[in-house]
Amino acid sequence: MSFLDEVPWNDQQLIPVITQDEATGKVLTLAWMNREALAQTVERGEAVYWSRSRKKLWRKGEESGHVQKVREIRLDCDSDAVLLRVEQAGGIACHTGRERCFFRKLEKGRWVETDPVLKDPSLIYKK
Amino acid sequence: MSFLDEVPWNDQQLIPVITQDEATGKVLTLAWMNREALAQTVERGEAVYWSRSRKKLWRKGEESGHVQKVREIRLDCDSDAVLLRVEQAGGIACHTGRERCFFRKLEKGRWVETDPVLKDPSLIYKK
Repeated sequence: MSFLDEVPWNDQQLIPVITQDEATGKVLTLAWMNREALAQTVERGEAVYWSRSRKKLWRKGEESGHVQKVREIRLDCDSDAVLLRVEQAGGIACHTGRERCFFRKLEKGRWVETDPVLKDPSLIYKK
Repeated sequence: MSFLDEVPWNDQQLIPVITQDEATGKVLTLAWMNREALAQTVERGEAVYWSRSRKKLWRKGEESGHVQKVREIRLDCDSDAVLLRVEQAGGIACHTGRERCFFRKLEKGRWVETDPVLKDPSLIYKK
């Protein structure tokens, strides 16, 4: 597919992907995709990332159920970042059970947690 | 400063930084910071990035005047991405003269430009 060819995949064959909640406008996560992940995301209409830690495709929500339905996919000016606008199932994007991964804020030189845990991760991940 | 030590700088000593317009909620850019850039961003209250192409610190707006006043700095769960919420001077973040760098949208397998050029880049960059 030609739109995949316009992405200058980095030396690890990845591109960073910002995911934003369509309803709230909050930035939920920064994750990564390879070519196959972006292709599957478009085909399925749900976010599929490349897990750098597990070194495999990661269908977001495959364990947690916290699927991200993709409403819009954008590419930046130099084609080295993708922006997804999604509908976040369950209202939880972070593996810690929080709405978003960016739950720490810099205050007076310290990273301070500002967002509550909405669901205990042990109840999200049954394995 | 200790908050800098909590960032696991990557093998290039960088971290990706998402910058979001505080007023509109739009994601403007994805850029990169090294330790010095993040330290200066906090000290100055204005975004300072690391330019990977020019291999030097990049005080956003130093040529264009399109400074980003920082209202909030956030860190994600595994500390490998930063989120800035900013006030964007001039309403233009992209070097193409557009509001944001994510001005292309995937439509039926093609990246389609959706955002207008607000100011001719030749009028932004005088050098």
